[in-house]
Amino acid sequence: MNQSVTIAPISESLPEFLSATNYSKVVVIADSNTRKYCYPTLKDILPKHTVVTVPSGEANKTLSTCEKIWQAMTKEELDRHALVINIGGGVIGDMGGFCAAVYKRGIDFIQVPTTLLSQVDASVGGKLGIDFQGFKNHLGVFNIPKSVLIDPAFLGSLPEREIRSGFAEIIKHCLIADAAKWEEIRQRDFEAQKWPDLIAHSVQIKQRVVDEDPTEKGLRKILNFGHTLGHAVETCFLNKPANKRLYHGEAIAIGMIMESYLSFERKMITQDLLTEIEEFIFATYGKVKISAEDVEEIITLTKQDKKNRGKEVRFSLLKGAGQCAYDIVVTAPEMRKSIAYYLG
Amino acid sequence: MNQSVTIAPISESLPEFLSATNYSKVVVIADSNTRKYCYPTLKDILPKHTVVTVPSGEANKTLSTCEKIWQAMTKEELDRHALVINIGGGVIGDMGGFCAAVYKRGIDFIQVPTTLLSQVDASVGGKLGIDFQGFKNHLGVFNIPKSVLIDPAFLGSLPEREIRSGFAEIIKHCLIADAAKWEEIRQRDFEAQKWPDLIAHSVQIKQRVVDEDPTEKGLRKILNFGHTLGHAVETCFLNKPANKRLYHGEAIAIGMIMESYLSFERKMITQDLLTEIEEFIFATYGKVKISAEDVEEIITLTKQDKKNRGKEVRFSLLKGAGQCAYDIVVTAPEMRKSIAYYLG
Repeated sequence: MNQSVTIAPISESLPEFLSATNYSKVVVIADSNTRKYCYPTLKDILPKHTVVTVPSGEANKTLSTCEKIWQAMTKEELDRHALVINIGGGVIGDMGGFCAAVYKRGIDFIQVPTTLLSQVDASVGGKLGIDFQGFKNHLGVFNIPKSVLIDPAFLGSLPEREIRSGFAEIIKHCLIADAAKWEEIRQRDFEAQKWPDLIAHSVQIKQRVVDEDPTEKGLRKILNFGHTLGHAVETCFLNKPANKRLYHGEAIAIGMIMESYLSFERKMITQDLLTEIEEFIFATYGKVKISAEDVEEIITLTKQDKKNRGKEVRFSLLKGAGQCAYDIVVTAPEMRKSIAYYLG
Repeated sequence: MNQSVTIAPISESLPEFLSATNYSKVVVIADSNTRKYCYPTLKDILPKHTVVTVPSGEANKTLSTCEKIWQAMTKEELDRHALVINIGGGVIGDMGGFCAAVYKRGIDFIQVPTTLLSQVDASVGGKLGIDFQGFKNHLGVFNIPKSVLIDPAFLGSLPEREIRSGFAEIIKHCLIADAAKWEEIRQRDFEAQKWPDLIAHSVQIKQRVVDEDPTEKGLRKILNFGHTLGHAVETCFLNKPANKRLYHGEAIAIGMIMESYLSFERKMITQDLLTEIEEFIFATYGKVKISAEDVEEIITLTKQDKKNRGKEVRFSLLKGAGQCAYDIVVTAPEMRKSIAYYLG
């Protein structure tokens, strides 16, 4: 994969990237928020360019938004030597990257992730895509950006809830791959975490895993820890009133407790580790109410998980702190039990 | 790339492929013609499967047809271990392959090309895609099928005009890569050509070129000989009444005369070779009338060619029989002259 990631002020990393390249045209893709709060930082650094602004939010990560982006790219007469710069969170990175990867069978793009979640997760690894008929990332491709330019300063403009959501992926990276770092973060309150250090750490882990297995045939599946039930919880809550909806990381935090419990049930982790994880996550995220009907919907939703094979639902589960196994088939009654454990 | 191509009766090659694999589900994509004339040959060989039938013709090679295919795939709850079998010509191969390559970030697919054109060209090389806003293959990806199963017997069901169209790509393969084979085919009338031998020959040349340069950074561009003006002619004629429209190969045949003339003008081929090419193509395809307005539209259309860089239009031109150069910038007045030469 050989993916280049730079963690530095964007005012340094972007000119450096551009000076080493020679693109025929530059198009910036942003959403209404990043257009307002992040794009101004880049505007004057960039050569002549066009900005395509799309409405913000997961609800717009659709084929019809892609169509609008492709129309704008066509109108600009972008050739194969053009560059797309995606400025935003996971939605913009995934969708803008997908649009670039498919336009004329692929043009170069770079990711400028502006949320903690996208800095520690979505921007690295080459997974691109959009939602389809309510299924997350149902359409997409693997394709790596020419570069990922991470500027921790963008976090300054984010609401705390957004940062807390991104933190869940940091917790996940520690749990599946670095026991010592897990010890370190769990000793600190959320407010005392050292973001630039944690971003670098997460990027390193993700890159190592993705380099070894770019297209998720095996090892990469460990990154799905917390995500099988987590995604299902997230999707289930999408249909609730706006004030009940969960951020991605909030759903993954829930999924991590449930899936740690499954790991414990399989005797893959100790009671002590389960308790540690559970206490730390509840202290950081609190507990979310899940009704009896939701439980059944969540279990049904796990059937659409991309890791599955046939009718089996496959999990990535911890085997001790800092280690993770994958392709573990879990039954509906076991899932029901793990949700009950979470609700305690 | 390592693309597997088998030229054999489908009743042998398909069971052999399936016996070595273990797919969770099988979906066949066909158009209304191949569903009727080709699918019955395969039906009983296949395990339990679903057929998705789309309307035939280039006009349906669109995002909205893809949406219908993806909806059908989702409804069938295809997981990542499913197989898509594309039965048809270039439209089905390009579009069905694209749909498979994008569904859940890519599932396996095989191509069963049923036209001469797709057997000698489209099915090999991993170029997938659809048209967008009137531009050919404007959206797409590179991705190779698990296998290409070519059965020359399918040609028996094709109208002669369809075979003549496919022959143009065979002529192109000889001209750009095999002088001896060019001598051989030009000595024979169209009716006397040996299709199974020529299919194998074309596939071999295309595979060799594509293996060396899968994503068209360099050498692969030679396959575009005849296609810069040829595509523009094809697109220009798309808007004409149905009885004036050109088949792909017919347009490429025109493009090959024009681009041979450009090669001659650049002193890259001799007058003798130009005359040979021109006489053989006119004898096989006749001459098509192109109006003065068409000429200007054709020249404008070459600007959207995917091989271009910025405002320059880049050609692949012959340098002697059996050899081809690429990235040659040609100006609008030169193109105008080459069209005039064709019209003689």
